[in-house]
Amino acid sequence: MKVEMIAIGDELLLGQTVNTNAAWLGDACEQVGWRLERVVTIGDGIDGICAAIAQAEARADLLIITGGLGPTRDDRTKHALCAHYGVELVCDEAWAQHMAERFASVGLQVIQSNQDQALMPAGATALPNPRGTAQGIWFDRVAMGGSGIAGATVTLPGVPFEMKGLFKDEVIPRFKAAGACDNQSLPLRMHRNILTMGQGESLLADSISDWEDGLSDRDLSLAYLPSPAQVRLRLTATGTDPDETRQRLDRAADELLAQISSIVVSALGRTVEHEAAHQLLLLNQTIAVAESCTGGGLGADLVSLPGASAYYLGSVVAYANSVKTSQLDVSADLLEAHGAVSEPVARAMAEGVRRRLKSDWSIAVTGIAGPTGGSSEKPVGTVYIACSGPHGTVVNRYQWGRSRSRNLLRTRRTALALLISKLKDLQIA
Amino acid sequence: MKVEMIAIGDELLLGQTVNTNAAWLGDACEQVGWRLERVVTIGDGIDGICAAIAQAEARADLLIITGGLGPTRDDRTKHALCAHYGVELVCDEAWAQHMAERFASVGLQVIQSNQDQALMPAGATALPNPRGTAQGIWFDRVAMGGSGIAGATVTLPGVPFEMKGLFKDEVIPRFKAAGACDNQSLPLRMHRNILTMGQGESLLADSISDWEDGLSDRDLSLAYLPSPAQVRLRLTATGTDPDETRQRLDRAADELLAQISSIVVSALGRTVEHEAAHQLLLLNQTIAVAESCTGGGLGADLVSLPGASAYYLGSVVAYANSVKTSQLDVSADLLEAHGAVSEPVARAMAEGVRRRLKSDWSIAVTGIAGPTGGSSEKPVGTVYIACSGPHGTVVNRYQWGRSRSRNLLRTRRTALALLISKLKDLQIA
Repeated sequence: MKVEMIAIGDELLLGQTVNTNAAWLGDACEQVGWRLERVVTIGDGIDGICAAIAQAEARADLLIITGGLGPTRDDRTKHALCAHYGVELVCDEAWAQHMAERFASVGLQVIQSNQDQALMPAGATALPNPRGTAQGIWFDRVAMGGSGIAGATVTLPGVPFEMKGLFKDEVIPRFKAAGACDNQSLPLRMHRNILTMGQGESLLADSISDWEDGLSDRDLSLAYLPSPAQVRLRLTATGTDPDETRQRLDRAADELLAQISSIVVSALGRTVEHEAAHQLLLLNQTIAVAESCTGGGLGADLVSLPGASAYYLGSVVAYANSVKTSQLDVSADLLEAHGAVSEPVARAMAEGVRRRLKSDWSIAVTGIAGPTGGSSEKPVGTVYIACSGPHGTVVNRYQWGRSRSRNLLRTRRTALALLISKLKDLQIA
Repeated sequence: MKVEMIAIGDELLLGQTVNTNAAWLGDACEQVGWRLERVVTIGDGIDGICAAIAQAEARADLLIITGGLGPTRDDRTKHALCAHYGVELVCDEAWAQHMAERFASVGLQVIQSNQDQALMPAGATALPNPRGTAQGIWFDRVAMGGSGIAGATVTLPGVPFEMKGLFKDEVIPRFKAAGACDNQSLPLRMHRNILTMGQGESLLADSISDWEDGLSDRDLSLAYLPSPAQVRLRLTATGTDPDETRQRLDRAADELLAQISSIVVSALGRTVEHEAAHQLLLLNQTIAVAESCTGGGLGADLVSLPGASAYYLGSVVAYANSVKTSQLDVSADLLEAHGAVSEPVARAMAEGVRRRLKSDWSIAVTGIAGPTGGSSEKPVGTVYIACSGPHGTVVNRYQWGRSRSRNLLRTRRTALALLISKLKDLQIA
């Protein structure tokens, strides 16, 4: 089934908000076997919204519109829907009552701008929203006498948290139950992701070129998704029978993994922080972190997953040299002799935090994130990463580029990948 | 001048990559007085790309296409451009030579997939890319005998770092120099951003409703951009004369600021971390951080800006209670009596890190990020934030919701806002 999305909001076009909803929706569709085919981002003008809806309804079984349902005057999506379907706004008394009660329960009165959020276009079905004050708006196009193909046009709040909840709780079950759509015959598509680090996209592609030649004859394809310090591979199989398609995909993934094993960080496509957490849990090991240039970002990566307290003890972020000395026991002589960005200091930081926090493992990073602060011997982008564990401490030097944000991201990812490789060594040993 | 963007890549529609390029491009256009009017995201299929280009060329003076220029087989944008303009790919010998030299300088041979990156559609101007192996592709539509309006269609690599560099260094100066476009008469538009925290969008809108009533008569408009813990306001003035428009905008911003002063975090719309850095630098003060639930994210926010070493000393991330005791001197009795998520522990963490790291100021956070770990007394989303400085320590309790990622983001932002408010008190005193 074909899905399209229209994201509404001047803020998306002025660069004030990144449209994270689109990626989320694409993934959510893929998980239920639907296909997001197009995302159109437009501003708050009513004419532009109407034209975009008409175009999308001619192609997509399910059109998801997001944004412009808020309580303020720049929210015009409901007016555009009324213009498109030729209907008026009417008050949803039940929702108005519900909001009044909800506000009263926290000691607030409903103000006019929230009262307006109970207005719904006539003929639409309201999708109740437990996370906010704007309901979702479901139009069955056939019932509305629409000119597009059969299907539904559903408008959801732009707030990611509310949009996601309504899509999962209301849109998926209703659309599956409704069943009426024109594009039922799209082929089945299944994906397998693999996360690699340590080799660029071109060299990686070159190394598996012969194998890749044969993929299309097997109804398989491979995509490369490079981002700082990593290349994510997406292997896709198309077919008709789910079991056969899954088996063909798994077989091809095994072939691929055998060729690139030295650079695989996660054979199941987990993020590097997810894979690190998984390995630590698997081996029942704890980790502590010593950071300089990354300011705490490595620890933040490790706690981004629920349940982090099972493996993560804490970090010492020693941005100033005085903190490296006082909180990590890095000697002033060592700092003087080698500089803060050096192999011995990275080693001392990793060993210091492991000793102080009493963890099984530790990682430490120290580097010159830029854009200034480099020298000819240690240019901007020079980073040392240490990993200390039961079998000793290793330190690697890396040379990144000139962009501060990219350097910090590459450092975080690479440090976690180094930890993963050492944990995997432990498993093999 | 009207700008549209077509972002190409199955990964954007499958949810594997968030399209951050669109927001960046919108902001970059606004800064040079251009207007990004539409962003269309589509997959790697050649027919779909060609159709989208034809539609956009009928509307936009400048069409920016991103993605699909990489060295691997899933990169098909150049083939689509050839199909659209009816031209062939030809080798750009100078670029092939340049790549061979660049690879040789780091001891690598150019492999076939990179050699293919020297192929350019005939009739296009190559935009040299010092950051990668794919050049930008500039088509002058009039010269190509195109059917759309006068202007340019420019294809750039999808890698954000490369796209941004080429847009700034090549596209802006060339398009300004070329001058040929059909939509020269768009009205002037200027924006002013204000960052607020501590009041929801609806109540904020209600409190300034009377003032907002008069805006449209003055060619002004106000937009509300809520995200976790904050509402960003965007005041926009349209006009013809730059000086008059700027003055009218500044006057309205002053009126608005006077009405909402208690919730303003940045009157110039800086991010909360940028505003905190600005205030610390202004007052020549240093900061240290003690974190629990956020895992280091507060420190990472503080070092996201260049020059952080002027104010940020470091953090102690005490995720485990043992680390709160050993590295922050929080007494085991205090932890036992009140629990790790409590007013006294937040206070002891802030004071402990300030004393240990010898900073002027400190902030500390401890909370239950969720989704599990709550109790009836301290449900998921309970967070204590402390700020300690020359005049003592304050601790506030907050109650967020059930989403871990939102709770962590709200905690980080609110902690920095508390610091800012205390620094501003110091300025006034």
